[in-house]
Amino acid sequence: MSDAAPLVRPSGRRPDQLREVRIERGFTRHAEGSVLVSFGDTRVLCTASVENRVPPFLRGKGEGWVTAEYGMLPRATHTRSDREAARGKQGGRTLEIQRLIGRSLRACVDRGLLGERTITLDCDVLQADGGTRTAAITGAYVALVDAVNGLLARGEIKAKGGRTPVFGAVAAVSVGIWKGVPVLDLDYAEDSDCDTDMNVVMNDGGGFIELQGTAEGHAFRRDELDAMSALAEIGIARLVERQREALDG
Amino acid sequence: MSDAAPLVRPSGRRPDQLREVRIERGFTRHAEGSVLVSFGDTRVLCTASVENRVPPFLRGKGEGWVTAEYGMLPRATHTRSDREAARGKQGGRTLEIQRLIGRSLRACVDRGLLGERTITLDCDVLQADGGTRTAAITGAYVALVDAVNGLLARGEIKAKGGRTPVFGAVAAVSVGIWKGVPVLDLDYAEDSDCDTDMNVVMNDGGGFIELQGTAEGHAFRRDELDAMSALAEIGIARLVERQREALDG
Amino acid sequence: MSDAAPLVRPSGRRPDQLREVRIERGFTRHAEGSVLVSFGDTRVLCTASVENRVPPFLRGKGEGWVTAEYGMLPRATHTRSDREAARGKQGGRTLEIQRLIGRSLRACVDRGLLGERTITLDCDVLQADGGTRTAAITGAYVALVDAVNGLLARGEIKAKGGRTPVFGAVAAVSVGIWKGVPVLDLDYAEDSDCDTDMNVVMNDGGGFIELQGTAEGHAFRRDELDAMSALAEIGIARLVERQREALDG
Amino acid sequence: MSDAAPLVRPSGRRPDQLREVRIERGFTRHAEGSVLVSFGDTRVLCTASVENRVPPFLRGKGEGWVTAEYGMLPRATHTRSDREAARGKQGGRTLEIQRLIGRSLRACVDRGLLGERTITLDCDVLQADGGTRTAAITGAYVALVDAVNGLLARGEIKAKGGRTPVFGAVAAVSVGIWKGVPVLDLDYAEDSDCDTDMNVVMNDGGGFIELQGTAEGHAFRRDELDAMSALAEIGIARLVERQREALDG
Amino acid sequence: MSDAAPLVRPSGRRPDQLREVRIERGFTRHAEGSVLVSFGDTRVLCTASVENRVPPFLRGKGEGWVTAEYGMLPRATHTRSDREAARGKQGGRTLEIQRLIGRSLRACVDRGLLGERTITLDCDVLQADGGTRTAAITGAYVALVDAVNGLLARGEIKAKGGRTPVFGAVAAVSVGIWKGVPVLDLDYAEDSDCDTDMNVVMNDGGGFIELQGTAEGHAFRRDELDAMSALAEIGIARLVERQREALDG
Amino acid sequence: MSDAAPLVRPSGRRPDQLREVRIERGFTRHAEGSVLVSFGDTRVLCTASVENRVPPFLRGKGEGWVTAEYGMLPRATHTRSDREAARGKQGGRTLEIQRLIGRSLRACVDRGLLGERTITLDCDVLQADGGTRTAAITGAYVALVDAVNGLLARGEIKAKGGRTPVFGAVAAVSVGIWKGVPVLDLDYAEDSDCDTDMNVVMNDGGGFIELQGTAEGHAFRRDELDAMSALAEIGIARLVERQREALDG
Repeated sequence: MSDAAPLVRPSGRRPDQLREVRIERGFTRHAEGSVLVSFGDTRVLCTASVENRVPPFLRGKGEGWVTAEYGMLPRATHTRSDREAARGKQGGRTLEIQRLIGRSLRACVDRGLLGERTITLDCDVLQADGGTRTAAITGAYVALVDAVNGLLARGEIKAKGGRTPVFGAVAAVSVGIWKGVPVLDLDYAEDSDCDTDMNVVMNDGGGFIELQGTAEGHAFRRDELDAMSALAEIGIARLVERQREALDG
Repeated sequence: MSDAAPLVRPSGRRPDQLREVRIERGFTRHAEGSVLVSFGDTRVLCTASVENRVPPFLRGKGEGWVTAEYGMLPRATHTRSDREAARGKQGGRTLEIQRLIGRSLRACVDRGLLGERTITLDCDVLQADGGTRTAAITGAYVALVDAVNGLLARGEIKAKGGRTPVFGAVAAVSVGIWKGVPVLDLDYAEDSDCDTDMNVVMNDGGGFIELQGTAEGHAFRRDELDAMSALAEIGIARLVERQREALDG
Repeated sequence: MSDAAPLVRPSGRRPDQLREVRIERGFTRHAEGSVLVSFGDTRVLCTASVENRVPPFLRGKGEGWVTAEYGMLPRATHTRSDREAARGKQGGRTLEIQRLIGRSLRACVDRGLLGERTITLDCDVLQADGGTRTAAITGAYVALVDAVNGLLARGEIKAKGGRTPVFGAVAAVSVGIWKGVPVLDLDYAEDSDCDTDMNVVMNDGGGFIELQGTAEGHAFRRDELDAMSALAEIGIARLVERQREALDG
Repeated sequence: MSDAAPLVRPSGRRPDQLREVRIERGFTRHAEGSVLVSFGDTRVLCTASVENRVPPFLRGKGEGWVTAEYGMLPRATHTRSDREAARGKQGGRTLEIQRLIGRSLRACVDRGLLGERTITLDCDVLQADGGTRTAAITGAYVALVDAVNGLLARGEIKAKGGRTPVFGAVAAVSVGIWKGVPVLDLDYAEDSDCDTDMNVVMNDGGGFIELQGTAEGHAFRRDELDAMSALAEIGIARLVERQREALDG
Repeated sequence: MSDAAPLVRPSGRRPDQLREVRIERGFTRHAEGSVLVSFGDTRVLCTASVENRVPPFLRGKGEGWVTAEYGMLPRATHTRSDREAARGKQGGRTLEIQRLIGRSLRACVDRGLLGERTITLDCDVLQADGGTRTAAITGAYVALVDAVNGLLARGEIKAKGGRTPVFGAVAAVSVGIWKGVPVLDLDYAEDSDCDTDMNVVMNDGGGFIELQGTAEGHAFRRDELDAMSALAEIGIARLVERQREALDG
Repeated sequence: MSDAAPLVRPSGRRPDQLREVRIERGFTRHAEGSVLVSFGDTRVLCTASVENRVPPFLRGKGEGWVTAEYGMLPRATHTRSDREAARGKQGGRTLEIQRLIGRSLRACVDRGLLGERTITLDCDVLQADGGTRTAAITGAYVALVDAVNGLLARGEIKAKGGRTPVFGAVAAVSVGIWKGVPVLDLDYAEDSDCDTDMNVVMNDGGGFIELQGTAEGHAFRRDELDAMSALAEIGIARLVERQREALDG
């Protein structure tokens, strides 16, 4: 990678530039929270469903649960993938992603205040162009807030000492090393051709919640890790802003 | 049902009135055909995917195949349903519907002209309000035409004697007996409270392709069957018109 | 199809003639109802099993349930089919048929009078020659009556105001358009070579319970639908007679 | 068990007496061999299906294969069992039995003479009253012979030096210790109340092919093993006679 | 088989000689009983796990349950076998073996004295060289005793009239006819090349608990059955001695 | 966390101290590589199996494949877990771990030099005390080297220009924030009570291959990430040394 010539990303973005982010609330009408989130051409429908029961391991403990499921429509991608329901099982990638989404959102929920309820975040990818899991987390947060605000509005949950079940905000973004340069929010063209890919989940206080880096080409060094972490902080700050705008809108 | 007082449908529609029908082509960008079809609040994403292979039973016969898969996002409905991929199998209703969609669309395809290709129609319900299978068939037809037109435009398929692989049009609508009166295109409120429910698939020549009637409350009579068939003909004619407008648009 | 020359069906039957129908009660001894039904060479063993529990969605509601399962022995057909238990799942056709059988028989049962009991109708095809689902429904009705009569005889259920849990009778038959002529009760040779195939379930009052028509070759017209419906009425009337004879026998 | 008082078996049989054995050939018409075998109230339908292919591990070796599948109709027993196809897997007992049937019949087949063909023996229990696996083996042998004779008659297989693919005969019977006395061919009443149960598969030369004994109550001694083996020899000799009569009939 | 020349087994053992048997208690630390048993190169890890619940069919009856599961690490064998967890089901051989282990060990347990507890014996083959099921039973017995002794030591179970839940000992060994000679404890080289293979489970009183003989080559005679049974008695006596030494050690 | 008082880890280790690491080659005899690796009480059996075929997506490309499977014996843990083979599927955690192991080891393999072969690394946890995935990667590397050295020794693979299919070394370790202090190689007691847990895979050149950090308690900061990364480097350097000693020994 040349220091002299400026990097030209396939999308024409600067290294520290996110794709256009759109967060559309109320996309479908049945769910307690329903958000269509777009990171450029990546579009994920995130719904939050509230149920008055908890998994067996939590029964009778007065705590709630937040969990996630992830799916990709068969033709969200360039070539059609088999439908997981037809194959009879969810693949490793799907399970890995939905576990990540669930852990990430539980990090901003006070499960005691939630009471014995389960909120399930279904993240279904309508169109994929890289970064589906980070878009899913970012959008699912907004759907979660909508669902919890509904519970508060209907008086099903009461705030305690001013605190509500959701504290802070959670968002996620990918960073990577592409042609030797750290870049923010990789799209599919970059993702399939990068040296290192790292998904970062952070809260609005700048703390890391999850960090998953993989060397695709060659191993990455400490300074590259630092540069990617710094980029992620920038991206997350902007995403948290978009989330606020959407929730205020 | 009183002859005197006019029937008031929950939606305010007349007995022979369809819901608002919208057919939006190019909803996602990867598929060879991608249509978001709405019958009122029922919204189904129909994509057509072309692959250059056929199932084992057709290999080497010079014919193509058209098949369908159907899915419902977990929170497309009032209460969340389990994700079929997570349960590890597709339910009986899903299999029944996707077999119906496949048979219906094969009825307007000349598989010899298609050549050794498979077109898979994925119909995924984003929001359900009754009539998801009829909306799916109606939308999938448009996605299928787009995919075949693409093959013709790229010269991968050639018309023979002016004929292309898709002949005629196929659309579907539900009819039923609600509060004793035959009505067209039932929404969820009517569907869950009707005496008889019948799904009808027809071509643009007025021929029946599939007809599936079920007495929910009491058995229905020959004259009721006649009245429902007549309503279906009216509805199908309008749907075929909407398909043409969408394809011309 | 020539108007002049009379149609010769492979079996030598007239267009409106059923195959020989036999209904043998008590074929096996453990089940509360056990019927071997034959429509010509199609032979289906239908057993009715009574259990003192209901599915979760009915618990505590004081109502009973009637459900069906359908299976085909691997060598009931010309060539051996895989055993569904070995493949690890029931196919779409199986699920579709057993859902149809269950709905059809529930149409003649007063589930309140049945009390919190489940009656399961197992329909296993020993030999197939077309029309297995219609034979299954026709035979399962007799097994159901035997099971309910047993409950009444043992005093486990009491009739209320002269009414018992089974009201009326239910039978099923296939009709179709074969070589352009409407025919009744298609056997395999006709079924695999017909233009349209329709399965009809009716009660003894002449009301339709289920009607499933499929255009195999070309789409069918309103007048063909009428002709097939009329034939079905004739066939059902005869089948209901056979059921009565068997139950009286 | 008293030496003085003669043992009274629930069925009134003598200790060394088989139940009534019936072997009905040609029970269904599609299979190359189709036998309904009854050991008293135990009734098993055994079909032999010939296919011109072998499992992957035998391809190109010029040898054939003989295999078996076993199933029990849900209401073959006193109380209804779940359908294995619906549960999505075959239970351990089923797998164990079908492996036993397959091994037993391979013991009388010259797989080289069979050529690259598979014969599948489907043994489906229509009614169970103890001893289903031994009845299945005994009946499946007859179905196998019918299938092979058909191949010989049609000239698809030729005998070599007078030898055909099936040599000798194979039959099976259960023996046990019931109330301290060795008895032959246990029915359900005995089977569910015995100290020891042993299934024995032998050929017509008096050789053991399989022998599976289980102490249900207390461990059994060498002399009991001897007594049971002797009874089994008596039973097998009679069963082989029945097989011959059926094949000659 | 020559009478003159003495048989030379691949391992150099005499016909009535066991392989070296080692029983190592406390191989892992979490289980209530943990035994690594070796029959020569066959090595099986047997753990006993105690849980304070019983299967549904025993609830509220005051009795305990003993069950077993069997597994083989993918590369315990000469060539790698598929992992059953990855294939999505346990094979017939696995189910057959774990049912055998469970039945065998229940034969020495007083389930009333055990109380409402389940002891699960997990037998996992680390390395296979023939006889894995007999090694598993022999080792699982020791793990079971350790687990029950722990319950007694902690006072969770009390002996009644001097009796504890485990009575007597249970061990297992294979015998066979190899090159015409009865041999004890077949290793893989013998097992894959023998005429007859028989697995024998006995108690320390010389009683048979399970006996499963299979003619691999030709059918075996009564005198061969006798000779194999006699060898099994010799082998079991020695194995019971090893079990005692291990438990005393 | 107090700055003054030194941290006392449950095991008495210093913050930057690994548990005792043992790497025992040739633990079982059939596999091309077989290593029992211990990180303290965590013990994982890692075998490398070589097969002369590649997955479909690599056929005919002249490249090899390296993949991994992970399993945990049911009683490797404090309380017994269900056997995945019995449940019929591998859980999300299992799939996630085996994908991680596979990616990590592919990072040190030249798949072109390997030729059309698959090496499968089976990592089975015999006893768990935290860090099973990092022990698995560290041990699997040694098994992989043994397997490849065997191929080179037998001349099945040839080195090219001095290069062999395995370049460099790969090892893994966990780091975390426990009671506010960064610690190396967490055992179960620490793992179940830490604020942050991070698994790090590195090569012997100090490059990162995988890095997966999760905030269990509160979100972690950049400086904590730095401290953990530094600890990981120390740990990995020591582990690579142990690997070398084992391979030289």
